[in-house]
Amino acid sequence: MFPKNAWYVACTADELDAVKPLGRTICNEKIVFYRAEGGRVAAVEDWCPHRGAPLSQGKVCDGRLVCGYHGLVMGCEGKAVAMPGQRVQGFPGVKAYPVVERHGFVWVWPGDAAQADPATIHHLHWADDPAWAYGGGLYHIACDWRLMVDNLMDLTHETYVHASSIGQKEIDESPVTTKVVGQEVVTSRFMENVMAPPFWRANLRGAGLADDVPVDRWQICHFVPPSHVMIEVGVAHAGHGGYDAPADKKVSSIVVDFITPETETTMWYFWGMARNFRPDDAALTAQIREGQGAVFAEDTAMLEAQQRNLSAHPGRRLLMLNIDAGGVQARRIVDKLVALEQPQKLAA
Amino acid sequence: MFPKNAWYVACTADELDAVKPLGRTICNEKIVFYRAEGGRVAAVEDWCPHRGAPLSQGKVCDGRLVCGYHGLVMGCEGKAVAMPGQRVQGFPGVKAYPVVERHGFVWVWPGDAAQADPATIHHLHWADDPAWAYGGGLYHIACDWRLMVDNLMDLTHETYVHASSIGQKEIDESPVTTKVVGQEVVTSRFMENVMAPPFWRANLRGAGLADDVPVDRWQICHFVPPSHVMIEVGVAHAGHGGYDAPADKKVSSIVVDFITPETETTMWYFWGMARNFRPDDAALTAQIREGQGAVFAEDTAMLEAQQRNLSAHPGRRLLMLNIDAGGVQARRIVDKLVALEQPQKLAA
Amino acid sequence: MFPKNAWYVACTADELDAVKPLGRTICNEKIVFYRAEGGRVAAVEDWCPHRGAPLSQGKVCDGRLVCGYHGLVMGCEGKAVAMPGQRVQGFPGVKAYPVVERHGFVWVWPGDAAQADPATIHHLHWADDPAWAYGGGLYHIACDWRLMVDNLMDLTHETYVHASSIGQKEIDESPVTTKVVGQEVVTSRFMENVMAPPFWRANLRGAGLADDVPVDRWQICHFVPPSHVMIEVGVAHAGHGGYDAPADKKVSSIVVDFITPETETTMWYFWGMARNFRPDDAALTAQIREGQGAVFAEDTAMLEAQQRNLSAHPGRRLLMLNIDAGGVQARRIVDKLVALEQPQKLAA
Repeated sequence: MFPKNAWYVACTADELDAVKPLGRTICNEKIVFYRAEGGRVAAVEDWCPHRGAPLSQGKVCDGRLVCGYHGLVMGCEGKAVAMPGQRVQGFPGVKAYPVVERHGFVWVWPGDAAQADPATIHHLHWADDPAWAYGGGLYHIACDWRLMVDNLMDLTHETYVHASSIGQKEIDESPVTTKVVGQEVVTSRFMENVMAPPFWRANLRGAGLADDVPVDRWQICHFVPPSHVMIEVGVAHAGHGGYDAPADKKVSSIVVDFITPETETTMWYFWGMARNFRPDDAALTAQIREGQGAVFAEDTAMLEAQQRNLSAHPGRRLLMLNIDAGGVQARRIVDKLVALEQPQKLAA
Repeated sequence: MFPKNAWYVACTADELDAVKPLGRTICNEKIVFYRAEGGRVAAVEDWCPHRGAPLSQGKVCDGRLVCGYHGLVMGCEGKAVAMPGQRVQGFPGVKAYPVVERHGFVWVWPGDAAQADPATIHHLHWADDPAWAYGGGLYHIACDWRLMVDNLMDLTHETYVHASSIGQKEIDESPVTTKVVGQEVVTSRFMENVMAPPFWRANLRGAGLADDVPVDRWQICHFVPPSHVMIEVGVAHAGHGGYDAPADKKVSSIVVDFITPETETTMWYFWGMARNFRPDDAALTAQIREGQGAVFAEDTAMLEAQQRNLSAHPGRRLLMLNIDAGGVQARRIVDKLVALEQPQKLAA
Repeated sequence: MFPKNAWYVACTADELDAVKPLGRTICNEKIVFYRAEGGRVAAVEDWCPHRGAPLSQGKVCDGRLVCGYHGLVMGCEGKAVAMPGQRVQGFPGVKAYPVVERHGFVWVWPGDAAQADPATIHHLHWADDPAWAYGGGLYHIACDWRLMVDNLMDLTHETYVHASSIGQKEIDESPVTTKVVGQEVVTSRFMENVMAPPFWRANLRGAGLADDVPVDRWQICHFVPPSHVMIEVGVAHAGHGGYDAPADKKVSSIVVDFITPETETTMWYFWGMARNFRPDDAALTAQIREGQGAVFAEDTAMLEAQQRNLSAHPGRRLLMLNIDAGGVQARRIVDKLVALEQPQKLAA
C-alpha cells in the first residue's frame, strides 16, 4: 500500500547517462528513465507499443529513446515519433510520467500526472549548499516499504541491530518523544553524558575534537510523506548545550533515507549521509559511505526476515509501543494519503 | 498454445548415447528419449509406473531402459517388460511417443500417435548432402515459442538487436514482402548495392571473394509448420543477379531454426547454419557456430524481456505492421492446426 | 501429511551453542531453539510479539533469548519477560514447544503440548553406551518425508541407486519379509553365501576379518513412528549363523534415519550410523560418515526427482508391490496417527 500521487526518488542523477536508459519499477509501474534532448530527464512506461518489448532494453540516440527490437522511436510524452518504414501517427501511446531532476536525484510521480506539482518535491536544503557533502548508495530490499519507515522512526533497534557501530546501551534507556507537526512526524531522543560509540568517536576525531570524553548525543527523526526519513544525528561534548552547542563543540550530520516502493513487498532504499564538516574531503565521504553501507545491510537482513515472518502470518497484529509511535503516526498519514486517492463515494 | 499432432525436433542425434537416457519436456509432455536395441531411438513418458520416479534418472542397459530406483525395465512401447522378483504383466503402461531419427535430429510426435506419419517430417535437403556442412547449438529460452517465430520472420530486428554482426541500416530501409504458399509462409527482403556487414565480409573472404565492394544481399525466411524457420541468406557481388548470381560471385547459407515448445512460456531453440561452401572445413564450422551462438544469445535476452513484459500485461494487444506480416501469417496457420485438434462440436 | 503429536528430532545437540539461537521449521511450525539457563534446551515460536521479527535472528545472553530487533526478552514458556523501557505483562505470548535433549539429539513435540510425555521419546540403546560410536549428518531434501520412509523400508533400491558402494545384484534377487509388530514395521532381507560389496569388504578388513570369502548379509529395517527408520545391517562369514553368528565372525551396525517433516514437501534428514566395533576410532567414524554422506546424496537426487514427477501428476496412483510393503504398512500407521489428531465427529 502506497500513495501514487506523490514524488518519489526514482534514481540518482548519475544512474542516467546519455546512452543507456534505465528500467525501474516504482509503485508497481514499470518505467523507463532516460536523458532526452538537452539532457533533461524523461520517463515513460517501459513498453514498446509495437511488440511489447521493454524500451529499457533499447538505446538513447541523440536524446531519443529507440526501442532495441525494431527501432521504434518513443517520444517523452509517450507517443511514438518515428519508426523506420512506418507511419506512427496511429500507434497507441504509453503512459508518460512527470519527472524532475533536482538535488542530485530524479523524482517521479507515478500517479495522476495532472496533479503533479514540482513545487511539492521534498526540499533538501543541504543538497545544493557547498558547505555540505553527500554520499550514499542504493539497496533493493524484499520488504514492505513501511517496515523501513518503522525501522527508521524507532532507533531503539540500533542497540541490537548495530551493536558494533552506532548502537549503545543508553539508546534504549532513554525515552523517546514523538510529535506530529502537520504532515511531518518527528521522533526525538536525547542521551546526556554518555560515551560515544565507535562511529561517533571517529567523527569527533575527524573534526579535531576529543573522542574520550562524555558527550550529549541526539537523534531526531523526521518522517516526510510519502516515504522519506531524514534523521538529524550528532554528538557534542557534554555540558555545552547538546544539539544547541556551538559548532566547535559538536559534530553532526543528517542520515538521508528515501524509501521508494517497488511493489507491495519490495522496495528501493536510497540511503546516505549529508554532513557539514570537511565537505571537500572525498576520502571521508567514501569512508562514511562504506561504514554506513555495512550498517544498513544489517537492517536489510532484519527487515527481510521480518517480512518473511509477516507474510507467513498475514493475520497477526503487531504491538504498538511508545517506541513505535513514530512509525504508527507515519502510517496514519500514509493511510490518509492513500484514502484520498480512492474513488469518492457519494453520501446516501 | 501449440499443435501437438506434429513432428518436433526433440534433440540432436548426438545428445543420445548408448547408456544415458535423456529427459526433456516437449509440448508439456515429460518424455524420456533413449537408444533402444540396435541403436534405434525410443521415447516414452518419463514416469516409472512403480513409484513415479523419472525414468530419465535411470540407465540404458543393452538397449533396455532400466529405472534407476528399483530396476523396472520399460519397453519402448510403454509397457513394463521386466522387474527383479516381480511379474509385470498387470502393471499400468505409460505413453509411448512416435519418434524418428533423421537428418541428424531426433523427431518426436507429442500428440495422437495414430496420426503420426514419418513421411511428413520436415525434409532437409542439405542434411544428408556431402556438399553441405551443418553446425549449430541449443538454447533454452523462457518465452512463448511464437515470439521466436515472430522474431525470425521479421529480420528488421537485426539492425537493432545485432548491430555489431549482421545488422545494417539498409535492412529496415528495404521493404519486405510476405506471401503464403500452402502451409508455408515466405518473407523476403532484397538489398541492392550495399556494403556487407562484418559477418558477410568474413564469409566473402572465406570464399575467396573481395569483401570491400558493394553487394546485393538477400534474406528469404520460410516458416514451415509447426514451428520451423529456414532462412536463405547470402550476398553476391553487386550487379551479377543477386540471389540468382553464378556460384563464383556469391556466398550463401541457410539459417536453420527448429523451435520446440517446452511449455506455454518456455522453449527449446535448436539453431544452426547449413552452408554449401568449404563443407569440409571443420574450423570454419566451429567459427560460424561460435559467432552465430553469440548473435542468437542477443535474441534470447530480448525475447525473455519481451515475455516478462507480456506476462505482466496479458490483456494488451500488440501492433501488426507490414514487417510483422510473416509472424502474423504463421500464427494463422498455427491457429488452424490447433483448432483441428480440438474436439469437434456437432452442428445443432 | 504428518502427525504433530509426536517427538521429532529437531537438531543435533551440537547445533545449539550458548549464544546463537537456531531457527528451524518442523511440521510447518516455525520454531526457534536455544540453550536457556543452565544449558537446558528451550523452543518457542520464531516470532517476536513486538514487531514479528524472527527471534532466531537474535542472541542468547546469559541463557535468555533476546530479540535482535528491539531487545525484547522472550521466556522459555513463550511469555515476554522483559524489554528495555517497557512493561511486558500484557504482551501476547507465543507458542512454547515441549523439547528434550536426549541421546545427543534435541527432540521437539510440535503438536498439543499437553499430550507430550518425554517417556515416549524413541529410546536409542546405543546412544549412551561407550561400546558404541555414532557419526552422522543432516540433509535438507525437497520431498514429502514419506518418500524417504518408502525408500528406507525397501532397500531393493540399493542395487540401482547405490550400485558402486552398498548395492549388489543379490539384493533384489532375495525375497523380503514384512511384518507389523504393534506400532513398528519390520522389513527383513537375508542374503546367504554372497560376496560382500565394497562398503562391507572395507568393514570386514577394519574388523580384522577376511574380506574375500563368501558372507551371509542381512538388512532388517525397523520403522518406528512417527518417522524413524533404524536399519540393522551386517555381514558374517558364511555358514556361521549369519545375523546370529558369534561376534568374531561378523561385523554389523545400525543405519540411523530420523526423518523430520519441514513442510508437506520438504524434510530434514538426520542420517548416521551407530556401530559397536572400534568405537574409539574417530578416523573410522569420519571415514564412514563421508562414505555414507555420499551414498545418501544419491537418495536425495532420486527422491527430489520423484517428488517433482509426483507433484506434476498429483492424481496418479503408485504401485504397491511386495517390496513396497514396508512403506505401505508404515503409511497405514501414520494415517492412523494423523486420524487420531482430527477433531472427533460424534456418532449420529
